[in-house]
Amino acid sequence: MRVKVAVLGATGFTGEKLVELLLNHPFIEISYLASRTEKPLPYKDIFPRFNRRVDIYCEPLDVKVALKKADFFFLALPHTVSMEIAPRLLEEGRKVIDLSADYRLKDNKIYEKYYGVKHNDIKNLKKAVYGLPEFFKEDIKKALIVANPGCYPTSVILAVAPLLKEKIIDRKIIVNSLSSISGAGRKPNVEHHFINVLNNIWTYKPFVHQHIPEIEQVLKDISGKTIELTFTPHVVGVESGIYSTIYVNFKSKISLDKLRSIYESYYSACPFIRLREPLPKLRDVIGTNFCDIGFALNSDGKEAVIVSSIDNLIKGAAGLAIQNMNIMEGFKETEGLML
Amino acid sequence: MRVKVAVLGATGFTGEKLVELLLNHPFIEISYLASRTEKPLPYKDIFPRFNRRVDIYCEPLDVKVALKKADFFFLALPHTVSMEIAPRLLEEGRKVIDLSADYRLKDNKIYEKYYGVKHNDIKNLKKAVYGLPEFFKEDIKKALIVANPGCYPTSVILAVAPLLKEKIIDRKIIVNSLSSISGAGRKPNVEHHFINVLNNIWTYKPFVHQHIPEIEQVLKDISGKTIELTFTPHVVGVESGIYSTIYVNFKSKISLDKLRSIYESYYSACPFIRLREPLPKLRDVIGTNFCDIGFALNSDGKEAVIVSSIDNLIKGAAGLAIQNMNIMEGFKETEGLML
Amino acid sequence: MRVKVAVLGATGFTGEKLVELLLNHPFIEISYLASRTEKPLPYKDIFPRFNRRVDIYCEPLDVKVALKKADFFFLALPHTVSMEIAPRLLEEGRKVIDLSADYRLKDNKIYEKYYGVKHNDIKNLKKAVYGLPEFFKEDIKKALIVANPGCYPTSVILAVAPLLKEKIIDRKIIVNSLSSISGAGRKPNVEHHFINVLNNIWTYKPFVHQHIPEIEQVLKDISGKTIELTFTPHVVGVESGIYSTIYVNFKSKISLDKLRSIYESYYSACPFIRLREPLPKLRDVIGTNFCDIGFALNSDGKEAVIVSSIDNLIKGAAGLAIQNMNIMEGFKETEGLML
Amino acid sequence: MRVKVAVLGATGFTGEKLVELLLNHPFIEISYLASRTEKPLPYKDIFPRFNRRVDIYCEPLDVKVALKKADFFFLALPHTVSMEIAPRLLEEGRKVIDLSADYRLKDNKIYEKYYGVKHNDIKNLKKAVYGLPEFFKEDIKKALIVANPGCYPTSVILAVAPLLKEKIIDRKIIVNSLSSISGAGRKPNVEHHFINVLNNIWTYKPFVHQHIPEIEQVLKDISGKTIELTFTPHVVGVESGIYSTIYVNFKSKISLDKLRSIYESYYSACPFIRLREPLPKLRDVIGTNFCDIGFALNSDGKEAVIVSSIDNLIKGAAGLAIQNMNIMEGFKETEGLML
Repeated sequence: MRVKVAVLGATGFTGEKLVELLLNHPFIEISYLASRTEKPLPYKDIFPRFNRRVDIYCEPLDVKVALKKADFFFLALPHTVSMEIAPRLLEEGRKVIDLSADYRLKDNKIYEKYYGVKHNDIKNLKKAVYGLPEFFKEDIKKALIVANPGCYPTSVILAVAPLLKEKIIDRKIIVNSLSSISGAGRKPNVEHHFINVLNNIWTYKPFVHQHIPEIEQVLKDISGKTIELTFTPHVVGVESGIYSTIYVNFKSKISLDKLRSIYESYYSACPFIRLREPLPKLRDVIGTNFCDIGFALNSDGKEAVIVSSIDNLIKGAAGLAIQNMNIMEGFKETEGLML
Repeated sequence: MRVKVAVLGATGFTGEKLVELLLNHPFIEISYLASRTEKPLPYKDIFPRFNRRVDIYCEPLDVKVALKKADFFFLALPHTVSMEIAPRLLEEGRKVIDLSADYRLKDNKIYEKYYGVKHNDIKNLKKAVYGLPEFFKEDIKKALIVANPGCYPTSVILAVAPLLKEKIIDRKIIVNSLSSISGAGRKPNVEHHFINVLNNIWTYKPFVHQHIPEIEQVLKDISGKTIELTFTPHVVGVESGIYSTIYVNFKSKISLDKLRSIYESYYSACPFIRLREPLPKLRDVIGTNFCDIGFALNSDGKEAVIVSSIDNLIKGAAGLAIQNMNIMEGFKETEGLML
Repeated sequence: MRVKVAVLGATGFTGEKLVELLLNHPFIEISYLASRTEKPLPYKDIFPRFNRRVDIYCEPLDVKVALKKADFFFLALPHTVSMEIAPRLLEEGRKVIDLSADYRLKDNKIYEKYYGVKHNDIKNLKKAVYGLPEFFKEDIKKALIVANPGCYPTSVILAVAPLLKEKIIDRKIIVNSLSSISGAGRKPNVEHHFINVLNNIWTYKPFVHQHIPEIEQVLKDISGKTIELTFTPHVVGVESGIYSTIYVNFKSKISLDKLRSIYESYYSACPFIRLREPLPKLRDVIGTNFCDIGFALNSDGKEAVIVSSIDNLIKGAAGLAIQNMNIMEGFKETEGLML
Repeated sequence: MRVKVAVLGATGFTGEKLVELLLNHPFIEISYLASRTEKPLPYKDIFPRFNRRVDIYCEPLDVKVALKKADFFFLALPHTVSMEIAPRLLEEGRKVIDLSADYRLKDNKIYEKYYGVKHNDIKNLKKAVYGLPEFFKEDIKKALIVANPGCYPTSVILAVAPLLKEKIIDRKIIVNSLSSISGAGRKPNVEHHFINVLNNIWTYKPFVHQHIPEIEQVLKDISGKTIELTFTPHVVGVESGIYSTIYVNFKSKISLDKLRSIYESYYSACPFIRLREPLPKLRDVIGTNFCDIGFALNSDGKEAVIVSSIDNLIKGAAGLAIQNMNIMEGFKETEGLML
């Protein structure tokens, strides 16, 4: 019997991508879609590309109805809305993957600083598992609530965690990330206008982006090491994807072979990590749940550029969420994701 | 002494392009910019790309102030707003080029049908000259108010008027036009979102687009002939431009040489019309005030495809308006436009 | 047991898309990939995006080896190469789907006129079935060789065939088609350079494109009616897709309801045809095997614009080929294609 | 009387842009265009967008003819070709601006290391002035041969030189640069294919790009300080532009006001440098000769991100060359460039 799955927030970019991917999953059934619509609408009328592929309605979000219809919940809701809804689902024994930032930052003070609101579900915040299977798979297996990682953090953590765990790089890390505007959501906005984004590039929130504490916390959890992070996100006029170029310094000289063998030792059993030599190209991961990682070493073997590349809506959001669900539900980790 | 020029509606795509082009005009001075801002703002703060190029403020639109500051007015205002403002400028002896649709359709009933509002400046509507210099240059010279043509009409009329004037084609004309989304304005809107426009194409308003009566009226004015027009506009994910592919039938067999000589006879003295063999490419006109026209003939010499290509914001709006101003003010027709 | 499938010509856009789609097909195994490489190369080294997804080599094309390795053949080869290879495969009892033009035109004189070479496999040309399942499903079931339709013909034929079969439109049909440059293949070429294609649109081969006789032949086969076709293809700077806008005239007044019911009667049982009201958008079919069809009627009910939209590499090539394979092999028609 | 100007290498992206900009220059006349064509061709036949704007032929390059026709030479030739031609022009008293790399690196050993060929015009290499007017204006005034800077070096040097001259930053500088593919030239190549570049991003030549020694040399010339540069160029799918994000550390705490005042003190008299707060966007410089510079400071005032943005073909090549010509010929520095 298929698992009955709900997507709350089914009309944003992430919710739409969740639906698209879930349609290809052999062991689940989409049993409830909800968003802030005023009345139920056929999902295929909202997104005509789903015509002949899905017949379900998208309904105004109603937790009581949702509880009747589904056993497993994806929350593709805005920050702060998730922490209103998740407790009610957990209370009734439902499993939850939250794609907002609400359950990612363990220190609620930091959450309040970066997201501007008080956290009001500390109880579940403590229980939530950070959903990066490459490092927390055993915890995810047992989790009732998973905090799905941010898109930038996924691209950064996967690229540098092995080096930090091996304690071979300095604590100072510089990350230059490039993202599609789709990461900023569907809301109409003069900044998101076609003419403003096409052929454009801009930096935003250097030193202060809300993903900084998330990266710092998780890298510390993984490696035991406190890093010093300089993180500069950019928007570039591409359809999708995040491309991170990361600058690290080695404590002592390293060879390319050694570097490669470290990454291989961490990731050879991870179905969605691909080492790419010499260096990744963004298009190779678009439409997939892969994270491609490559690296180049300076001639003195003391400094490297690590590059990682993901589809921001898949490995950076919806695909990773399904990978987490697969682990939580005991499915094959790649189920429905090797398309 | 330079002519003092105002742009009302200086923050839309067309107003912005007007300012950009006027900055390169040797005989005018931009003396007043206005829009629906609530307070005066440096124009370069609204559009940082004008930094170090223009120092004027953009002010909340105030006709009294405008009259004090400028002698020549470009109205890059929404439909229906123009006809509120233009009479007050004309009354005070100012010359006006209106880039909205308000003064294009001579039959106010048709205006009301297509634009959904009653026309309330019939007096000036009668006086307004249609600003297509390739056919109405003498009238434009003497005009006090010029109705600047719509973008689609410019691309269509220039392509077929010579054939209609020569009375060699049937009255039935099919026009398939492709436009950049910039023609729809800057208003934020889910349809204008980068992700919705990139790599997309869609048809809208077939048979009912408001530019249909404009094309019909002007082609009749030029040729004395009533045409039967099928017009299908499309949006395509390009940065700028309109590309029209037009299907015509000849009353009797014609040769390619004959066809070429007809176009040459009409346009050899027109500085902004270029015949392009075999066929135009959109990029060749982008950033210019040119209209490129090409054609291909069926093997039986009875049917042709006429193709025209313009930059929708230049020859399709702001550039054409400056060409009209040049004629009205006695400047060289190409002044400031051969960049 | 899975069917062993070969793709000859696996490094062009179409071959690459075939591999991508075949990887998701549950009942086949890709057992042989070949192209004009000089030596065997891991397919994932040619296309790094297939890393961790396919482990097979791409080999220099050798028919003898191919025959040993596979039972079912996709020929994604250039025109004229297919007709050298196909006979040798058919002779050995292999089933073939040819994605070139070599087996589409029944009249070899017309083939020679449009493709510039003599046809040298008349025997199999006669046996070949035109692979458009919406109209020739029964023949495809029994076919040993299927001529996979051209991309433009698929988009045009599906849009107008019902109206021709119903004998309600005039024989004169005007087709304005827009295509991604990917339809022109991967060969490096100054015309295909990023800077030449981005934000560009151009018409090519009006009245003389090689897909004209294919459309005429197949529409006659379907409807018994000889049409008069004006076909104008364009390249537009989009990543993929074909968008056709088709102008037809009705013999007598028709209603929108009647028009809709005709399309429904033909296509309600066709899993990959979607009627879209009011009109299709290109993005909705990208990445899918759907053909979206929409229409608009003039106020007098005598003229319509029919719009069809496909992904040129899927429903216009590789997806349609797999749909044909499904039918030939007795699989569900949608197997592996509902992603 | 106008200066007679030649462009050698008039069919590459840079040569084409030079012609476009020179057409708007009031004090020069384009008297000779040459490229590797086999026979003279109207320039407007090679680039139809110049139709009705330029009537000159593009001829097979012949130095003797060139010397007869022009007094001032732009060399938009490939590396190694320039140093064959320049000496013959200089010998005859012509002024030369070379847009290749041949006269940029003062140490011919480094030239040979990075460009793979022996330098064979050491004499003129010594005389050549590096054409960055913001720092070498007085030398450029007197120069007979100017080495026009590389596109990446221009974007990097302008951003960090003031900080180095003030001796307030550490010698270690990390530069993450993003460039349009147009910087790689017009040569057809599978990497430059529309489908490969659209929506793509990739890193290339980290630690080893040939612009590294150029940046190091010039920053040392300007500041007296040897820097340690990590430079990572990327290609992104934008039509034009270079966007550099630069990471620097301050020797002691600095304030944003102080940082701003330093940039102002260096650049207030430079017509093509614009400080942009908070941070530049690429589109704002496209089509212009401006370099926009912005910066953000870490909360501890010890680390900054400096961002610079240029049009790679204008301030990064052709526009800068004309700025240099203006200085060499005693024209106003902005002549023909404020469009």
